Amino acid sequence: MDTVSHRPVIGRSQEAAISTEPGTIGELGEFGLIAAVAARMPQPPSAIVGIGDDAAVLRLPDSAVTATTDLIVEGVHFRRDWSAPADVGVKAAARSLADVVAMGAVPQTLLVGLAAPPDLPVAWALEFASGLAGEAARGGASVTGGDMSSATQIFISVTAIGSMAGREPVTRAGAHPSDTLAVTGRLGQSTAGFALLEAGRTSPAGPVDAYRRPAPPYQSGPAAAALGATAMIDVSDGLVADLGHIAAASGVRIDIETARLPVPPALTDAAAALGLDPAARAGSPGPLSWLLTGGEDHALAATFPFGTQIPTDWVVIGRVHPGRGVYVDGMNYPGMIGWQHFR
Amino acid sequence: MDTVSHRPVIGRSQEAAISTEPGTIGELGEFGLIAAVAARMPQPPSAIVGIGDDAAVLRLPDSAVTATTDLIVEGVHFRRDWSAPADVGVKAAARSLADVVAMGAVPQTLLVGLAAPPDLPVAWALEFASGLAGEAARGGASVTGGDMSSATQIFISVTAIGSMAGREPVTRAGAHPSDTLAVTGRLGQSTAGFALLEAGRTSPAGPVDAYRRPAPPYQSGPAAAALGATAMIDVSDGLVADLGHIAAASGVRIDIETARLPVPPALTDAAAALGLDPAARAGSPGPLSWLLTGGEDHALAATFPFGTQIPTDWVVIGRVHPGRGVYVDGMNYPGMIGWQHFR
Repeated sequence: MDTVSHRPVIGRSQEAAISTEPGTIGELGEFGLIAAVAARMPQPPSAIVGIGDDAAVLRLPDSAVTATTDLIVEGVHFRRDWSAPADVGVKAAARSLADVVAMGAVPQTLLVGLAAPPDLPVAWALEFASGLAGEAARGGASVTGGDMSSATQIFISVTAIGSMAGREPVTRAGAHPSDTLAVTGRLGQSTAGFALLEAGRTSPAGPVDAYRRPAPPYQSGPAAAALGATAMIDVSDGLVADLGHIAAASGVRIDIETARLPVPPALTDAAAALGLDPAARAGSPGPLSWLLTGGEDHALAATFPFGTQIPTDWVVIGRVHPGRGVYVDGMNYPGMIGWQHFR
Repeated sequence: MDTVSHRPVIGRSQEAAISTEPGTIGELGEFGLIAAVAARMPQPPSAIVGIGDDAAVLRLPDSAVTATTDLIVEGVHFRRDWSAPADVGVKAAARSLADVVAMGAVPQTLLVGLAAPPDLPVAWALEFASGLAGEAARGGASVTGGDMSSATQIFISVTAIGSMAGREPVTRAGAHPSDTLAVTGRLGQSTAGFALLEAGRTSPAGPVDAYRRPAPPYQSGPAAAALGATAMIDVSDGLVADLGHIAAASGVRIDIETARLPVPPALTDAAAALGLDPAARAGSPGPLSWLLTGGEDHALAATFPFGTQIPTDWVVIGRVHPGRGVYVDGMNYPGMIGWQHFR
């Protein structure tokens, strides 16, 4: 069923071999493509029934489960000339896995829908699948099901299912005044990379790679839950916008101190490459605005009870107070604070 | 958040009220649309965390869960001029729910992705959501999460999660020689309805309605599992094609006796309306071919150990034998046996 895996491959990586797969998915057909993709998806021991039946069946560690769906659309979330197919697979998996760990849950499985034009190269679909399976594995999950369809542009849906592993979920609604605010993972890098690509640049490489391949800190989510985090969110729309969701759901004010927010050299370099002032104030394009409003890196932001020994992979950047809204250095943030579809 | 539900509505159904919602989703914006849709989605008691956080969290009856994803794409699975938005919602929910019950599982929740052009009327999105929520309820499930995006055509993903309720899954691989083959639910009606719509007709109404709103027999899936069904599948691609999956996975031959397959008057009427011979042989367009190869009604086909008292909602249509493939009245089926995307 999977012609690639039966072809002798000597001295080349699996991915290099995949990229030589000829033809379009229209020539291969749905069932051939499903077989080729499924061959790239190792099934976990928890899968009583894996890919190939009406539905997957999994024996999970706990009857309390978390589940989330994300869409990735060509021209909206990615461009084929900016991202390799494996990059798109990484991004598709990362978005949903980040939502799972932001509940404090442990990722278990992904279900993936792929709709695409019949002239899509088979190599694109298989490299996408490999990128997706690799990122799923990095998050501790496997791909156990999916669906395919034809369409005029590439549409991807990824559903992630996680186990609560005996813990209560960490929602957006649990932050209390005096809690410590901390973040872990990249901030602003994906947005800086997007700005570079939009300006026709592919360097500095750090932010461009970050745009192409988000790397959410999966282990930090369940670890924060075990440590007693009171609220948590993955930063998909931007730090200020996403903390705004916690502030609203918890009925609190959240203060960010930008002096505590480290500005990575990659962002300073990106600003310089784009002719921006690396020290621009919040609200003007530059590193600080990227840190505060850049989404898609899928960092985690969480609040912890005052006095919690915050693990070293987190950076403390502020505090929770009575009130409402998100304040940056004591003021309401002046700039645009997030992305909204359809507008 | 939901302006419709706060508007006085006298002497009109909720759906009629919804359809007066003005504007496009581009004018309303993503967050407004999410709020309006969420207001139509009652959250179940099992939802520890429902719509509005990073992910839903559910307390399920069993740690063994089943999960499946299906895609519905405008122009591929539906046309806006052939199906009302609520019809599309019903179809989207039904496809995934049918996969869950075909494992013998009990549906618990749906997660829904909707990508659409910004000029989509808000009324379309809300009626779609109502149709989807209604069909989810008919299947015993609730919608607890989702995602939205802009796109150039309407693209819908539905993930259904079910509980095994303490039973083993009924896969495609368990059929044994001497097992009884039975089906429950509509067969061929959706395909007949599609043929009528393609010919510019909207009557007879039965098949056209069946095309627009599939009605899978949700309760029959878990009931068959409880009765000891050895293999089960939902008929999404066509009876012969889908029984072919059971035959292949189980390593058996499956025989269908067409004399046992009731031909509903609706199919005879549809054939007459289309100028087809209502008694056409298998392989030529007409009622018998629709019954054998028509998909999308999401009937259930199952095998039961010889001697099982088959419940009255099922029709016995054949038997399992040693060998391979699917035979119709003792012969390999002559016609096209199913749908394949991209080709």
